[in-house]
Amino acid sequence: MIHNFNAGPSILPKEVFEEAAKAVLNFRDTGLSILEIGHRTPLFQSVLDETVLTAKELMKLDADHEVLFLHGGATTQFFQVPMNLLNENQTAAYLDCGVWGSKAIKEARLFGNVEVVASSKDKNYTYIPRGFKIPPDAAYFHYTTNNTIEGTEMFSIPETQVPLIADMSSDILSYETDFNRFALIYAGAQKNIGAAGVNMVVIRKDILGKVNRKLPGMIDYRNHIEAGSMLNTPPVFAIYVCLLTLRWLKKMGGVAAIEKINRAKADLLYKTLDAKEGFQPTVAVEDRSRMNVVFLIPDPLLEKKFLEACKEQNMVGVKGHRSVGGYRVSLYNALPFESVQALTHLINQL
Amino acid sequence: MIHNFNAGPSILPKEVFEEAAKAVLNFRDTGLSILEIGHRTPLFQSVLDETVLTAKELMKLDADHEVLFLHGGATTQFFQVPMNLLNENQTAAYLDCGVWGSKAIKEARLFGNVEVVASSKDKNYTYIPRGFKIPPDAAYFHYTTNNTIEGTEMFSIPETQVPLIADMSSDILSYETDFNRFALIYAGAQKNIGAAGVNMVVIRKDILGKVNRKLPGMIDYRNHIEAGSMLNTPPVFAIYVCLLTLRWLKKMGGVAAIEKINRAKADLLYKTLDAKEGFQPTVAVEDRSRMNVVFLIPDPLLEKKFLEACKEQNMVGVKGHRSVGGYRVSLYNALPFESVQALTHLINQL
Repeated sequence: MIHNFNAGPSILPKEVFEEAAKAVLNFRDTGLSILEIGHRTPLFQSVLDETVLTAKELMKLDADHEVLFLHGGATTQFFQVPMNLLNENQTAAYLDCGVWGSKAIKEARLFGNVEVVASSKDKNYTYIPRGFKIPPDAAYFHYTTNNTIEGTEMFSIPETQVPLIADMSSDILSYETDFNRFALIYAGAQKNIGAAGVNMVVIRKDILGKVNRKLPGMIDYRNHIEAGSMLNTPPVFAIYVCLLTLRWLKKMGGVAAIEKINRAKADLLYKTLDAKEGFQPTVAVEDRSRMNVVFLIPDPLLEKKFLEACKEQNMVGVKGHRSVGGYRVSLYNALPFESVQALTHLINQL
Repeated sequence: MIHNFNAGPSILPKEVFEEAAKAVLNFRDTGLSILEIGHRTPLFQSVLDETVLTAKELMKLDADHEVLFLHGGATTQFFQVPMNLLNENQTAAYLDCGVWGSKAIKEARLFGNVEVVASSKDKNYTYIPRGFKIPPDAAYFHYTTNNTIEGTEMFSIPETQVPLIADMSSDILSYETDFNRFALIYAGAQKNIGAAGVNMVVIRKDILGKVNRKLPGMIDYRNHIEAGSMLNTPPVFAIYVCLLTLRWLKKMGGVAAIEKINRAKADLLYKTLDAKEGFQPTVAVEDRSRMNVVFLIPDPLLEKKFLEACKEQNMVGVKGHRSVGGYRVSLYNALPFESVQALTHLINQL
């Protein structure tokens, strides 16, 4: 068995791989591959409809929220959000909690004013700032719920009257939260939703249509809502993999059920790291991510032993992001508890 | 055997489906699915490198041209092209030859002036205009080489000193042409390159960096060139399907070899349609597409017989685009000659 701790693209349930492979050869007994079916057929429409419905169900979304599956990743949303929602003379509030959030800030500045309400850059983004104020006249407030690279996670939703926007790429559907409180949520699929190549966007429609600038067709969210995510040829296969993954999550008992397992996985790993001499989790205890566990091994000898043991025991994806170094172990929904047990056992043996 | 005449997503070689399905289960004997491998691994880097190299080789590109594989489809390029290349006070020249070209024009107008050098809208886009003049001071000249919906194709490259930009989504790699004469080429993959969910862009670098406006990171082609198509998580699987399809084309003998087969397929079908009473190809003889053959069957009785026969003989995707009606049969690279033989046989039997 291979233990896949990749940060994304990352592990998906085995049955998703099996069903996806089957569909590439013969989709639903049509004799055609899913790669060669028309997107404007009842066949694909039923895939898209079920994907949207299952996503809405898992997030318990109300009727005001639309679910879109769009081309591109979160990086596309970094500019699509302000281009749709921020006028030149307006100010958007952003929380600066990591590499991705700071990239989102950079893009927003191209379209209007940005007020950074707080930043944890002073300590290499190893904590989540608290007590910040969101200006009541901001066009919106944007933050990253989970910082994939730095390993921090923000579980509480800020209290504000301003429209809330969140990049949930790396922790969406991993714990229960009130998705309806957000005006816009986006998430690259390649962690908890499916494979790389598609982006899920959740929008409360009333925030749209208020910006002055003229928007390209593919940028205007209203066009995608009107066209039901089929403004142009959608990433058919990537959406099908989302469907399979969301179906699996539903069968597992949904978000509440997976949250329990995710808590158990993260608790076990952090407990092990805290107890083991030579291993140093980098993040403030109260802000530790349940999805991405970041730690250092300062002693090169121990580091070498750890890496050799990982290799021997088929553990992949433990290396930290090139921008922060160290180690990062990702515990997304599809990672079995057994993989965390195997890893903690390995660490304890060192 | 199913005969798949879909306009896109469309038929791909059987061996591509087989290899792709295998990779979803176990990619290159790693024990991992291609859907769960990291994009910043030597494993995926080798996929991307070979895809780019094979594309360059098949198009015989010189060293000044870069090949990118980007998120989104051609519709994204409709605005990305003018946003990168057209200043507000400049004029771009466009040829209006169909639904896609006119959408590209609409997007360009958001960024600068557009001069439509010629249009075939007067006759429902059933021909390619000739004798048009491209203003020598235009920022660039844009046209669609093959009009997927209307079934026209433009094989000759206009003579001009102005940078040439072409949407080649539906006929790229189907016949020999001098790709090096273009400053920018784009093509949604889902016809002759691979499956839906990725876009190939060929760029001559010297045209970039001349626009005044500030560009979002994901929009600036220079960022994608610098990052080698990995500015963010790329659509990993879609790129792998491109690799498999391009490898197949190379093995078939490349573009020159496939052109011969494509000519034979189109010749046989048009000859059959011209000879058969009750079938009316809609496009001027000299402008007929070899990729998308559009025709009408005015007699409802004959139409019914045709559709029933198609159903009986497992022919899918013959219905025309919702915007023009009638019938459209697509003959992309991967469609075997046998499928055209079967269709012409069916038509002759009616």
